[in-house]
Amino acid sequence: MEDFNLHLTGDVHAIGAAHNLGAAFIDNHIHHGNQLGIDALGVLWPRVVDISDRALRKVVVGLGGSENGYPRETEFVITVASEVMAVLALARDLADLRLRLGRMVLATARDGAAITADDLKVAGSMAVLLTDAIKPNLLQTLEGGPAFVHCGPFANIAHGNNSILADRIALATNEIVCTEAGFGADMGAEKFFDIKCRASGIRPDAAVVVATIRALKMHGGVGRIVAGKPLDPALLQANVDAVTRGAENLAKQIENVRIFNVPVVVAINAFPTDTPGEIEAVRQVALAAGARAAVVANHWAEGGAGATDLAKAVWDAAEEGAPNFQLLYPDEAPLMDKIEAIATKIYGADGVDYLPAARRQLAQYETLGFGHLPICMAKTQYSLSADASLKGRPSGFRVPIREVRLSAGAGFVTPLAGEMRTMPGLPSRPGGENIDIDAAGEILGLF
Amino acid sequence: MEDFNLHLTGDVHAIGAAHNLGAAFIDNHIHHGNQLGIDALGVLWPRVVDISDRALRKVVVGLGGSENGYPRETEFVITVASEVMAVLALARDLADLRLRLGRMVLATARDGAAITADDLKVAGSMAVLLTDAIKPNLLQTLEGGPAFVHCGPFANIAHGNNSILADRIALATNEIVCTEAGFGADMGAEKFFDIKCRASGIRPDAAVVVATIRALKMHGGVGRIVAGKPLDPALLQANVDAVTRGAENLAKQIENVRIFNVPVVVAINAFPTDTPGEIEAVRQVALAAGARAAVVANHWAEGGAGATDLAKAVWDAAEEGAPNFQLLYPDEAPLMDKIEAIATKIYGADGVDYLPAARRQLAQYETLGFGHLPICMAKTQYSLSADASLKGRPSGFRVPIREVRLSAGAGFVTPLAGEMRTMPGLPSRPGGENIDIDAAGEILGLF
Amino acid sequence: MEDFNLHLTGDVHAIGAAHNLGAAFIDNHIHHGNQLGIDALGVLWPRVVDISDRALRKVVVGLGGSENGYPRETEFVITVASEVMAVLALARDLADLRLRLGRMVLATARDGAAITADDLKVAGSMAVLLTDAIKPNLLQTLEGGPAFVHCGPFANIAHGNNSILADRIALATNEIVCTEAGFGADMGAEKFFDIKCRASGIRPDAAVVVATIRALKMHGGVGRIVAGKPLDPALLQANVDAVTRGAENLAKQIENVRIFNVPVVVAINAFPTDTPGEIEAVRQVALAAGARAAVVANHWAEGGAGATDLAKAVWDAAEEGAPNFQLLYPDEAPLMDKIEAIATKIYGADGVDYLPAARRQLAQYETLGFGHLPICMAKTQYSLSADASLKGRPSGFRVPIREVRLSAGAGFVTPLAGEMRTMPGLPSRPGGENIDIDAAGEILGLF
Amino acid sequence: MEDFNLHLTGDVHAIGAAHNLGAAFIDNHIHHGNQLGIDALGVLWPRVVDISDRALRKVVVGLGGSENGYPRETEFVITVASEVMAVLALARDLADLRLRLGRMVLATARDGAAITADDLKVAGSMAVLLTDAIKPNLLQTLEGGPAFVHCGPFANIAHGNNSILADRIALATNEIVCTEAGFGADMGAEKFFDIKCRASGIRPDAAVVVATIRALKMHGGVGRIVAGKPLDPALLQANVDAVTRGAENLAKQIENVRIFNVPVVVAINAFPTDTPGEIEAVRQVALAAGARAAVVANHWAEGGAGATDLAKAVWDAAEEGAPNFQLLYPDEAPLMDKIEAIATKIYGADGVDYLPAARRQLAQYETLGFGHLPICMAKTQYSLSADASLKGRPSGFRVPIREVRLSAGAGFVTPLAGEMRTMPGLPSRPGGENIDIDAAGEILGLF
Repeated sequence: MEDFNLHLTGDVHAIGAAHNLGAAFIDNHIHHGNQLGIDALGVLWPRVVDISDRALRKVVVGLGGSENGYPRETEFVITVASEVMAVLALARDLADLRLRLGRMVLATARDGAAITADDLKVAGSMAVLLTDAIKPNLLQTLEGGPAFVHCGPFANIAHGNNSILADRIALATNEIVCTEAGFGADMGAEKFFDIKCRASGIRPDAAVVVATIRALKMHGGVGRIVAGKPLDPALLQANVDAVTRGAENLAKQIENVRIFNVPVVVAINAFPTDTPGEIEAVRQVALAAGARAAVVANHWAEGGAGATDLAKAVWDAAEEGAPNFQLLYPDEAPLMDKIEAIATKIYGADGVDYLPAARRQLAQYETLGFGHLPICMAKTQYSLSADASLKGRPSGFRVPIREVRLSAGAGFVTPLAGEMRTMPGLPSRPGGENIDIDAAGEILGLF
Repeated sequence: MEDFNLHLTGDVHAIGAAHNLGAAFIDNHIHHGNQLGIDALGVLWPRVVDISDRALRKVVVGLGGSENGYPRETEFVITVASEVMAVLALARDLADLRLRLGRMVLATARDGAAITADDLKVAGSMAVLLTDAIKPNLLQTLEGGPAFVHCGPFANIAHGNNSILADRIALATNEIVCTEAGFGADMGAEKFFDIKCRASGIRPDAAVVVATIRALKMHGGVGRIVAGKPLDPALLQANVDAVTRGAENLAKQIENVRIFNVPVVVAINAFPTDTPGEIEAVRQVALAAGARAAVVANHWAEGGAGATDLAKAVWDAAEEGAPNFQLLYPDEAPLMDKIEAIATKIYGADGVDYLPAARRQLAQYETLGFGHLPICMAKTQYSLSADASLKGRPSGFRVPIREVRLSAGAGFVTPLAGEMRTMPGLPSRPGGENIDIDAAGEILGLF
Repeated sequence: MEDFNLHLTGDVHAIGAAHNLGAAFIDNHIHHGNQLGIDALGVLWPRVVDISDRALRKVVVGLGGSENGYPRETEFVITVASEVMAVLALARDLADLRLRLGRMVLATARDGAAITADDLKVAGSMAVLLTDAIKPNLLQTLEGGPAFVHCGPFANIAHGNNSILADRIALATNEIVCTEAGFGADMGAEKFFDIKCRASGIRPDAAVVVATIRALKMHGGVGRIVAGKPLDPALLQANVDAVTRGAENLAKQIENVRIFNVPVVVAINAFPTDTPGEIEAVRQVALAAGARAAVVANHWAEGGAGATDLAKAVWDAAEEGAPNFQLLYPDEAPLMDKIEAIATKIYGADGVDYLPAARRQLAQYETLGFGHLPICMAKTQYSLSADASLKGRPSGFRVPIREVRLSAGAGFVTPLAGEMRTMPGLPSRPGGENIDIDAAGEILGLF
Repeated sequence: MEDFNLHLTGDVHAIGAAHNLGAAFIDNHIHHGNQLGIDALGVLWPRVVDISDRALRKVVVGLGGSENGYPRETEFVITVASEVMAVLALARDLADLRLRLGRMVLATARDGAAITADDLKVAGSMAVLLTDAIKPNLLQTLEGGPAFVHCGPFANIAHGNNSILADRIALATNEIVCTEAGFGADMGAEKFFDIKCRASGIRPDAAVVVATIRALKMHGGVGRIVAGKPLDPALLQANVDAVTRGAENLAKQIENVRIFNVPVVVAINAFPTDTPGEIEAVRQVALAAGARAAVVANHWAEGGAGATDLAKAVWDAAEEGAPNFQLLYPDEAPLMDKIEAIATKIYGADGVDYLPAARRQLAQYETLGFGHLPICMAKTQYSLSADASLKGRPSGFRVPIREVRLSAGAGFVTPLAGEMRTMPGLPSRPGGENIDIDAAGEILGLF
């Protein structure tokens, strides 16, 4: 979905161009005398590219002699992980976008001070490049329902939520608005509450947690899901025990949402191979974990009609509302306390371990005055922990943080947990190998 | 103009994405076992970015451990220098585009064989990414005249001509079509004839060489033009002698077009500070050099009406036509002979010097079967020579070639002359510093 | 002392040449077709230089085109950290030296197999380069006592003990032999027992633990010792409380030696500023911790006569002997268990944390058949922990391991604890700045 | 010979240590605040290693974060190419050594000024490291004749002459002294005259040009000599024609020495396979070219007795002497004129071509006040030209200069001609593969 909307209107290209313009301005400024006293080894701003290209994860640029600048190690991240993407999604309007872009910290000075996009005089050009991209894209479903598709930060490495601007427009014209927060509730929902609601001031009335039988079965220890490979047959065989075990993961996700005092409706996204026994097992675990309702939906087959029960349950929940909605941690808590709150309360970890670099960065960001920011954890979506192989509801684990990044314009701090990366790599047989076009312009191999 | 059309419709972003997908496929293929036996140090394909970013001229990628691939030196070029841009402009239709993309040589194998985009199974995806970009963009002038704006390879580092497809559509629906070839006639016109006409099979009936008094004055040794600085006042003062001296450059450009047996009309692009004496001096030099006519045009002030005389002169010239049109060199000449032909006949050089790397590359391309391709010289547009400081009509110089690149899909070979670069750098005060947007969405500082 | 003996006879240069020859052979082998199938990204062998040069800690070599090999990331370590240095110190004779050099694992193959110096046919040349260096250097003290000075692996980053060959020659000709193990007993003594005794089969009869009042005072929280700065005056003032607190460090070191069932004599290396109260405090802590004796020595002032009491106490202890001498861990324990044994029993840590890279390396070395090797920990000498700032006898800490290196020829595995580095850097005002020579050949500024 | 003397006494290790200490001081100075304002991209000083290691020809150092300094591209050269080696050979005494070391220009400041070893306060330490190496090594021949073996700059990439100090000691104690200048007379002899005589003030009385029949045969177009391969059989067959043709190379070398007004004796270094006809052909060409005598010597078989005739001829020539000895060019000539003088008069070239970098460097060195220095050309020894494949006495060629290095302490400027490198690489089967040592200490495989 996210990729789709981005190529649709060129938004991601505009974001990439704005981002890389900032990078070029930094190196250019240092090359031309460095009046701001930028610490060439203290540049915080990567470059971006919208292709999974592992060779760009770590590079040395500026080689080949002094006319090419000065050499330094840096990295490319996937464009969806760009702070510009996060800023676009969190900006309330064009003026706010411009302010946030200007506040982004691209580097530090030799004396430790923050160097912002405004200091480098590049934020104006960035904003101009985003004048089209800031406009939410209004699409319609196959049945004609309106849907905004706008911005695509991934929930594992970014904040995982569509734009505040799209939500605001939708709220201004509708009785009820559903908005999607990516991946598991430990990632997307936590960031929706602690980052997006903080930025927008908008409060949710209810939450929907989506579950599938086969995902829970896998969390119960059966089968494996490998990207690009056919589905493991074990996931298609009825197995109430495995589903029940795996539903502990769902239970924790429900509890996680309840921590924010928001009512939860579980949507069981039904497949033809699901058995009544499996569905019932999920329902019972969900209700026991505090869900207000757990409803089967099969809109994939029946369209809107297949989601009527779900819609009613959500409407009811929203009418109850969340008058006691609360964030996980206060602004004024130290950054490490916020990280610990997420790790222990949401992920169920025993605690957090920091590499020395991560400790130094957290201290640096607090010194620079960014200690009040919320946290945008970068963590695998495959486990509640930072270890993708720990399924179900793991316990007795710690969350290792190797590095922490600052997004001063978006307004959060991003710890990198485990071996989480901000630039994917292509598989041994990329999907693109099968794609082609014929002379009539027919595209082949997309599905 | 070129930049304008590219951002207009996202064409340049599509080209950049297609190009960089090829780069990711190469490194990914080697990383995953390298079944094609690609020589990791024989990769010919750079990456591209659409920003002037000198720090990316020479980089080492693939650092940080084996999960990031393998380290190698490579470069980023500006997107307009991408072979994909050249292919898009030279393709006759979608099927031809697909074939040309597939033929592009991205690397060599350890045994010396060419590795194409088809070998890597990436050409299909590239073509799909270009399905919108291949469609010429039809715009209109302020007076409502139709104009295709499509593709933007720069004439100094690329072939400098808009798309064959746009020309073909225009020719199918109009009595006469004007198409632009970038920069001086030694660059844009030579490439128009030897590359674009070769590829399209379309023959020109006449050529317009555009001249300005102030440019010729500069070629006559007066004043300096520096990008980003106000115009040198010396260029605004009447100076018939300087204009006459500088017009030797124009004379050579006229002679250059005459080598192809195409009638030449000189358009004197008039400015308010030009004096009648200066204009007359240019006219006389032009006619003496073999121009069919030399006409003043001031459409910049009067619109179409200001170019009526010019239009008539061009129409007349086109009616005369170019029945004896000839290319500068035959396909079957060795690559070095072709380069020598351009250097001596078009630039007026005494000869060509090759660095050892350039010699090796030329021999390699002939061994690979690409000796029949035409030449797309990369040379400064500021001089007939490869040395930007040699103004007027220089003589007694040699053209140094330091490197030669292969564009097997576009169908040419590109020698890099002198210190010509395929990635510009930003100036000490980039124009982007002045650009901003206000809360009402008004863009500031563009002009 | 170590530096002194190395430059004395050129031993360190021979070691450096032998080491770097191995490095050149690896890259040369890959460059010339790579018949052994070496994984270019799996090279384990650094280069060495005998200068503190932080710029060489991490480098990319092989740049500049295929005639220069292939690019890869690697590092230079200080020559004393070379495995060749360790091999030289642990070899029983020339034949054993040759065998050990041949067994060194310089790289891995693409299929994971070990590539040794014998596989690369470089071990013979290495041995030839060491034919002079293997001969122990016999010197005499100012009073004419014989002393072997041979080999200098530092005890923080290497095994910290002089050569087995020198010990064997000394033992063959003397009633009693004292040999030095570098730095604290947690480093030098543990490695003497677990690595050098294992390799030589020689058992110790007694151990001397050397203490100074000022070092214990510092461990008690008073003053700071900074390399290159004058002594902190606080360390020169009597402070029995601080000494008593700091002596907990000494107590732990005594306990550490007792773990091996070796009798301990504490030598209090007296300074004029030490007070009787401070000395008595140390004596009491030492005896309480299990030392057989604690004796003041002031040979620095009185020569051999000043160490007579100490010598007697050591002779007595050696006559008692260590019939129940035992190693800390058996060969057959898994590598992680051995590391844990050192960390918890010797350092007093709660446990060990491994970065993912360290885990992978430990698994790799066990797969390659090196799980039986002892451990040569690289750890700061400034603390019992891996954190140089934790003084005295710290508790409640964990030992972080970020990387593990294999020395298959020397016969040990080296975990890098904390931020311990194998290449130092020069200070802001290197001592070398003061050194000069006059026209008469007089060397100035050495002291 | 050169390698032999260096390892003999550790001189080359001392030179390497002194050289690399300078490199560490530069990077360390910049790292610690850079009070001298060194331009990090204007460092002129490479590192050295005494192993043929092509992977070190071009490296990026200082990677891995700011605690490792700052990244920059640099190179390692073989130790014999170190300026320290050249300084040691050209120093008149210890005081002169110290002065020359201090004058070496290691880098430039951001304002373009030279940064010397004295500015960096490293020259004193360098001199101390060389206190043993400066002492000439006195050896004896198998027959007991005294011979100094001291210093080893290669004549292709360095000045190719042994030390002035050794010559001075020899001259102080002997009637006549023979000193060796490496490789061909176009390299070693030219540098002996223009660099070493300039530095020492000592004038030669006569010159010996050594010739072998097989080398001249190869210059005549027969056979190939490949390092590490058995001799081409074609070179062992009598071929007067080939010898006569190839002797044109010898003729040019004789003429070259005559340019300096020094009498020439040709020593024909006889081999058993040489025929009288071949020897006579060489003699005639030599005398025709201006040699005073051409004498067969077979000391390789008969010892001193085999060189009696040669010795007499040399003694006679020396008694004639060189009263009109003259240098090739005056100090005050511009650097380019000096280079042109060598290229055209000594090598027989038509002229010199400079890459832009070389032009900039020459201009820079003249600006810095080093225009008065002599030239130390780096050129292949396999041809009079810069192209190793041009045998005999080539003509019609130009000498390409790609880079120019400054040796301000040694006192010369080094243009790099053609593809001449200052770091060799190992062959596909390095000689070291055959070398080993047995348990008795016997070295195997050296010959």
